[in-house]
Amino acid sequence: MSSYLVTGAGRGLGLEFVRQLSQRSAEQVSVVFAAIRGSPSEALQQLANNSNGRLVILHMAVSDKSSVATAVEQVKERLAGQGLDVLINNAGMTHTTPEGIAAMDNLLEVIQVNVQTVQNVTSAFLPLLKEGIQKKILNMGSSVGAISNARKWAQIPCPAYKISKAALNSLTAQYAIEYEKDGFAFFSVCPGWVKTDMGGEWAQLDVGTSIKGILAIVAKDATEINGKFLKILIPGMENAEGFHQYDGAELLW
Amino acid sequence: MSSYLVTGAGRGLGLEFVRQLSQRSAEQVSVVFAAIRGSPSEALQQLANNSNGRLVILHMAVSDKSSVATAVEQVKERLAGQGLDVLINNAGMTHTTPEGIAAMDNLLEVIQVNVQTVQNVTSAFLPLLKEGIQKKILNMGSSVGAISNARKWAQIPCPAYKISKAALNSLTAQYAIEYEKDGFAFFSVCPGWVKTDMGGEWAQLDVGTSIKGILAIVAKDATEINGKFLKILIPGMENAEGFHQYDGAELLW
Repeated sequence: MSSYLVTGAGRGLGLEFVRQLSQRSAEQVSVVFAAIRGSPSEALQQLANNSNGRLVILHMAVSDKSSVATAVEQVKERLAGQGLDVLINNAGMTHTTPEGIAAMDNLLEVIQVNVQTVQNVTSAFLPLLKEGIQKKILNMGSSVGAISNARKWAQIPCPAYKISKAALNSLTAQYAIEYEKDGFAFFSVCPGWVKTDMGGEWAQLDVGTSIKGILAIVAKDATEINGKFLKILIPGMENAEGFHQYDGAELLW
Repeated sequence: MSSYLVTGAGRGLGLEFVRQLSQRSAEQVSVVFAAIRGSPSEALQQLANNSNGRLVILHMAVSDKSSVATAVEQVKERLAGQGLDVLINNAGMTHTTPEGIAAMDNLLEVIQVNVQTVQNVTSAFLPLLKEGIQKKILNMGSSVGAISNARKWAQIPCPAYKISKAALNSLTAQYAIEYEKDGFAFFSVCPGWVKTDMGGEWAQLDVGTSIKGILAIVAKDATEINGKFLKILIPGMENAEGFHQYDGAELLW
């Protein structure tokens, strides 16, 4: 019986996280908090309606510390003495700057959305996570943010996004080292190239396949994943053609 | 006859950069722009007074794009048709967050100072740098910002600084790839642990030794250094005891 909180749960990968989690048995998953900023999409509302109260829509503006603090209290009340087991920091944004990096004028905005909000949510929920059994925090990374692979992704015109994901990796690595003595796992997973609003229709994976692969990593022992930056494993796609290979290997930073 | 612009030139490493550069012969160095935010220190003013006009104090608030734009015009006028050869993005800040990363509440501020200002200055001076012969841009990196080495530096309590230097590395790597076809070198050098206000009196190196090591890297062929993250080479200190080794090797990101 584990509890999960997923940010950015209104659509795309976040919606699929809460769909797959809430459809597991009550023995496996006690409650899933689907954090969203605005009103729930019809798809999310339907999932909540059909969940026997196990999928809880949580209004939380991740960029607003007071909103996050209010959400912490709501989660605490719903958990009624239990801890929070798994936090999935999924909310994020991308952009394009087709004119090249010299034209990049949105760096602080993208860092705010992709890194600062993770800090807001993680630090605020840390006390509840310390009371949890699993103590896992997944920060959604991206291969595109791997500095060591910058040349491979040179044609993808989102310089601030890449910088923000490198910055997020640094944050993840630092949390991992500081909290491993307490049994935590802080880790980063690249979801691959997925058919979402962000990934577009030409992407390699449907959201269900990507999230299934990510949740298989989340299920691993904390000591096996703490501090790592991982690809998902999709049998038969270990050597997929194109940019992404789904071989479950560690990515370089 | 090369021209140089150094940000953060009022003290510490920046002051030593302009000192060493301005003391080279006029055949080697035509002009050094010492960019500072406030009033010049006495040391900087004296260097300028004794430079036969080759050390130019440039008032530029690197966080203020209009101030940077004004400075570009001043530099352009002084160069009188020549390009700018070398830009050294040295201005930066550090901090301590001794309570651990969960207490980090200064991330955007530190990113603003250590990354956004580099973007402001680099993008604004790029047209003048394209007219230069050397086309070199040094971004001051830090081993402490290497994500792959996060465990080694875990006891250094500056999480936002580490994140900002990882973010800066991503920026440097992206510029390097985009502009290498035009003969540019964008690269990052770790100055080592230096006796400055930032490094403290227990540091391993005096500023003169560190800057001499950095300028030896700046002097290399663009193709040899573009896109790299480098340690300085100090003969006899290749295997220095303590955290830093000064062996001139590439650092991992």
